[in-house]
Amino acid sequence: MKLAVIGVGLIGGSFALALKKAKAVSHVAGVGRSKQNLQVARERGIIDSIAPDAAMAAKDADLVLVATPVAQFPSVFAALKDSKALITDGGSTKRDVIAAARKALGSGIARFVPAHPIAGAEKSGAAAASAELFQNRRVVLTPLEENSPQAIAKVERAWAACGARLSRMPADEHDAVLAAVSHLPHLLAFALVHEVAGRKNSEQLFSFAAGGFRDFTRIASSHPEMWRDICAANKDQLLLELNKFTGKLEEVKRLLDDPAGLEKLFAEAREARDRWIRSS
Amino acid sequence: MKLAVIGVGLIGGSFALALKKAKAVSHVAGVGRSKQNLQVARERGIIDSIAPDAAMAAKDADLVLVATPVAQFPSVFAALKDSKALITDGGSTKRDVIAAARKALGSGIARFVPAHPIAGAEKSGAAAASAELFQNRRVVLTPLEENSPQAIAKVERAWAACGARLSRMPADEHDAVLAAVSHLPHLLAFALVHEVAGRKNSEQLFSFAAGGFRDFTRIASSHPEMWRDICAANKDQLLLELNKFTGKLEEVKRLLDDPAGLEKLFAEAREARDRWIRSS
Repeated sequence: MKLAVIGVGLIGGSFALALKKAKAVSHVAGVGRSKQNLQVARERGIIDSIAPDAAMAAKDADLVLVATPVAQFPSVFAALKDSKALITDGGSTKRDVIAAARKALGSGIARFVPAHPIAGAEKSGAAAASAELFQNRRVVLTPLEENSPQAIAKVERAWAACGARLSRMPADEHDAVLAAVSHLPHLLAFALVHEVAGRKNSEQLFSFAAGGFRDFTRIASSHPEMWRDICAANKDQLLLELNKFTGKLEEVKRLLDDPAGLEKLFAEAREARDRWIRSS
Repeated sequence: MKLAVIGVGLIGGSFALALKKAKAVSHVAGVGRSKQNLQVARERGIIDSIAPDAAMAAKDADLVLVATPVAQFPSVFAALKDSKALITDGGSTKRDVIAAARKALGSGIARFVPAHPIAGAEKSGAAAASAELFQNRRVVLTPLEENSPQAIAKVERAWAACGARLSRMPADEHDAVLAAVSHLPHLLAFALVHEVAGRKNSEQLFSFAAGGFRDFTRIASSHPEMWRDICAANKDQLLLELNKFTGKLEEVKRLLDDPAGLEKLFAEAREARDRWIRSS
């Protein structure tokens, strides 16, 4: 199988490395904006050739992974219009990606099987790619009614070969679920660090921050452009989540005058989290 | 040196273990509410004897560490009124602890040198104690004007023997700094988990939560009673912090309509965090 990876970053590079390790691909062509990053990908054996654009990369490919920041998806899909290859993606939001694909691919939309690998890290770029990134991680497919069972199965096999645990979900459900457990926490972490960093005594504040703050804010070291695109694409769901969360903060403020009620909330949260950790 | 530990949990147990490892104490007496926990402490060699109450434990002690949840401090200090031992503590808030000590110790207040070891974990109890817990962690002393230089130096030597990096700060400044970088993040983590856990589809939501959510919410597995007391003691500073943070969330909501502005905020937050991580 020949693979084309559009955007050889953490996700794209790891997909290529994992499929190579599984001996599921014979050749990987890479496309990207940064020559330096493509050079790293080449040196690390992530890609075998560098293509000048997505159309050229897809020309001989059996499978194309689109793994650029989501704002570039419309132009990438436009470049893939005349290819015959099956297409999947690594976008963290799905409704906007599907809309962009429909617009650009037209009747070729059946070739696109949308996917979201729920595996990230605050690192980015080909240098951070790893054949193990998707091992035991969830990959959610949000198949389209135009997709053939064969196309879905082929894309599933590729992600499964990376070691992922697969599930399927409608795109709108996917975007709602991810807004709650991924997009909102990222926004909160960015917001907290920005708040602290903007103060006169920020140096002192950071110097007394410890492990709790470090872990809480780890995702604030994520890729700004990627998260800009996710927030823009999932704005409606994120607003819903922000409003639910600020409602919960109002409850917490009131409970500052009710220590027993606050302890109950803490205990319930701890129990829910510990139950989740045990089961995952 | 003979040490008495009132509350042989993570902090108290680790203090005893670290001083034993440094050969700075010859005997440790422990006091606590849970017989089972004291038994664990005994079996692990954290304490050498179990005392029936704080007064008895402090009788022959040179140094007493008060490391119970903060709500118990008033009764513990009352029990220590007639002892001659130097006292320090492990409380995460300092203004309330000092007020309780003044009230209970009266003219004996000079014997109390307040301290906050900024080293926690979501684990609690003697079973989680470790001689390495304070290694390279900050311990903030908030000395009183009544403390003699000798008393401060002796308490500093004990914490330094645990491997801690010491600093001094007025109590009100300590409580303001910790509200921003520790107490607020804990509240936010508890709140987010509680919000998600309370939904109809909470099981689905947790099942698609990944590493970002896990790290962001790690501190929501902290000790509910301890955090109830911290929030009660530092309520005024926490309210200030909650209001600043919800103000920042309003800014973030507005920026959902301004992708470039949102990306700038993300980039500034990432840069501030990465700079902190590099320097720490």
